[in-house]
Amino acid sequence: MQFSSVLLENAVKEFSSLPGIGKKTALRLVLHLLKQEPNTVQRFSDVIAKMRSEIKFCQRCCNVADGDICSVCANSSRKQDQICVVESIRDVIAIESTQQFNGTYHVLGGVISPLDGIGPGQLQIESLLTRIQKEKTEEIIFALNATIQGDTTIYYIQKKLQGLPLRITTIARGISFGGELEYADEMTLGRSLQNRLPIENYMVKN
Amino acid sequence: MQFSSVLLENAVKEFSSLPGIGKKTALRLVLHLLKQEPNTVQRFSDVIAKMRSEIKFCQRCCNVADGDICSVCANSSRKQDQICVVESIRDVIAIESTQQFNGTYHVLGGVISPLDGIGPGQLQIESLLTRIQKEKTEEIIFALNATIQGDTTIYYIQKKLQGLPLRITTIARGISFGGELEYADEMTLGRSLQNRLPIENYMVKN
Repeated sequence: MQFSSVLLENAVKEFSSLPGIGKKTALRLVLHLLKQEPNTVQRFSDVIAKMRSEIKFCQRCCNVADGDICSVCANSSRKQDQICVVESIRDVIAIESTQQFNGTYHVLGGVISPLDGIGPGQLQIESLLTRIQKEKTEEIIFALNATIQGDTTIYYIQKKLQGLPLRITTIARGISFGGELEYADEMTLGRSLQNRLPIENYMVKN
Repeated sequence: MQFSSVLLENAVKEFSSLPGIGKKTALRLVLHLLKQEPNTVQRFSDVIAKMRSEIKFCQRCCNVADGDICSVCANSSRKQDQICVVESIRDVIAIESTQQFNGTYHVLGGVISPLDGIGPGQLQIESLLTRIQKEKTEEIIFALNATIQGDTTIYYIQKKLQGLPLRITTIARGISFGGELEYADEMTLGRSLQNRLPIENYMVKN
């Protein structure tokens, strides 16, 4: 692409460095901003810079936080002795959006994946174990993606927790709500048969 | 979506105000920036703010410019008496990218569209007419989108130019290069039959 302005070209270059944004989309976004009021664009720019420079990670659960402790950990009406173990901040947002969970989180920052060179040492596993022992946690809920890496991570942490007096669970796997049996993969359908529920449990839940 | 950080939430809100960016994509972009070095994000933010505050519009052709005159108008090796009339800056970039045009531009900033309340007065038509008379332009090339609004605009300007000693042309309409006849719409195919070329012209051009 040939631009007749270096300022425009640089802005397009910055936008197209973002994931999933190509040159054409970047140009569309820049031309959109060019049409906005200068103070609107200044606010856009300030908010992004401020987000990166001022955001912190919760010292207890590694979630994003505006201070030293995130709003979930600081909220005394939540069950502080229940920890939901997730891979990333994105998963915290997904679970919070269901409004069905009233405990706290622990963000691992990834899952064990030897092929990508990620071992337990690079994840927030040590801090999780220390936290569980210190806080006398009652329940650990694993909410990791249902992949081999996710399962490996659950297995690894669960081994480390053996002997501690706590309940360890994982979120249910099965056919999605509204999903059709014939389109479900064999693994999911097979497991959901194995882990079938007494009908009373099902009725209570729905 | 429930965020546990106001800084994060504000950044997502700003990104999702851009066209074609929903909340989920905005979150993906923000989490990507959160993983980058602080100075990378600061540069991103600065470049965007600088683009909006410092960019100017060429006093001659209304194209984007870093100074009072754009780089196309300032380039003496280009044919300054040939004006290509386009709708927007995006079209200038598209034509420049072909590297097939060596004249100058005039950016109208839209096309005449009574339904959207856009009349000739809101477009850079007056400045085009003044420029043509002042500069003794030799050729006007209309490169507007092939829509009713585009054609109306061509008709309007062309009427105003009657009597002036200049060549008025429009870019060719026809079947796209590599396009298949059976998928072309009737209008395009019909017009491309009407405006058929002597075979010698075609051979020279390819």
